[in-house]
Amino acid sequence: MNSLPSRVFETAVNELAKLPGIGRKTALRMALHLLKSRKEDAESFGMAIIRMHNEIRYCRECGNISDNELCSICGSPKREKSIVCVVEDIRDVIAIENTGQYNGVYHVLGGIISPMEGIGPNDLNISGLVVKVESGSVAEIILALPTTIEGDTTNFYIYKKLHASTIPVTTIARGISVGDELEHTDEVTLGRSIINRTPYENTILKKNQ
Amino acid sequence: MNSLPSRVFETAVNELAKLPGIGRKTALRMALHLLKSRKEDAESFGMAIIRMHNEIRYCRECGNISDNELCSICGSPKREKSIVCVVEDIRDVIAIENTGQYNGVYHVLGGIISPMEGIGPNDLNISGLVVKVESGSVAEIILALPTTIEGDTTNFYIYKKLHASTIPVTTIARGISVGDELEHTDEVTLGRSIINRTPYENTILKKNQ
Repeated sequence: MNSLPSRVFETAVNELAKLPGIGRKTALRMALHLLKSRKEDAESFGMAIIRMHNEIRYCRECGNISDNELCSICGSPKREKSIVCVVEDIRDVIAIENTGQYNGVYHVLGGIISPMEGIGPNDLNISGLVVKVESGSVAEIILALPTTIEGDTTNFYIYKKLHASTIPVTTIARGISVGDELEHTDEVTLGRSIINRTPYENTILKKNQ
Repeated sequence: MNSLPSRVFETAVNELAKLPGIGRKTALRMALHLLKSRKEDAESFGMAIIRMHNEIRYCRECGNISDNELCSICGSPKREKSIVCVVEDIRDVIAIENTGQYNGVYHVLGGIISPMEGIGPNDLNISGLVVKVESGSVAEIILALPTTIEGDTTNFYIYKKLHASTIPVTTIARGISVGDELEHTDEVTLGRSIINRTPYENTILKKNQ
């Protein structure tokens, strides 16, 4: 595609094309859509992105996105604080909450170990989990990371880190097909996989046999 | 999907979900992507959209997006100014330019007549075209609007408006299948349809027979 006849328009298209899964033609369509919309609407669009980055806060306990110091889940007296479900990001919290099958709290890593994308253990909220476990307030850790190589690697890293403690570490049941993303799984399967969680040791043995 | 645990995050997701073809799950993924990226990157993203709306300019002659008073096509001495190709928006200019088959200039309407979306003839740059034709500087009008009901309606409206003048009004050949968008057509078909343009009267007769 040739370069566009306007520099500001070109810049907007290039920025939109950086979004995940958006190619240049779709970015062009989005930029035209924003250009045809009212000036105030385009301004609130741009400001929403800038403000999100400046004003967002994270829950002190679980690391989830939150408006307050504690998120609504960690702040709820109805939730079982000693059961901690480790997830990649807020999308997985939403997915598990939608099943209605889980009454514990979460620990949001903010990503998974991925050498391909240059994300190591130190880029993630893992040390916070170790501190939480060492303080003795946790009775069970449920690993609910994606069933991909990166997810398995992160599972194993966390399992090794927590090995000194005696609390059970479980994973959600492998009812989810390998390679699938957690957020696209149907609610029944995901809900059942929370109930049928299995000791992490079992999954390692099965793989080695 | 439940509401999100942060107001600024929720706002950003809602704004992204307003983009054409973007659902709430994709918007959530985009917002997380922007949140994980560096603060400066998110800021240039937001500012690019706001600046585009504030600083964009349109070519005095054809109505296309432009950095200067005249766009690069209208300002080029190599282009045949008396042949005017009427298109919906800049995406169609890019598509026709990519064929390398056209040496005239364009007239960008900025949309097509669509009662469904509340777009009438007065919302489009049609009067500018009539003025241009009445000034006697145009030798031929090529209608290159989408082959949809809205495109046909707009073609007919423009044809009626220009009926008083004696200049030929042609449409690009219907090699493009009816219902397809101009920008997704392959370059050979689109190029041929510019060369094999037919008098607009012929297309009306064919339809009524």
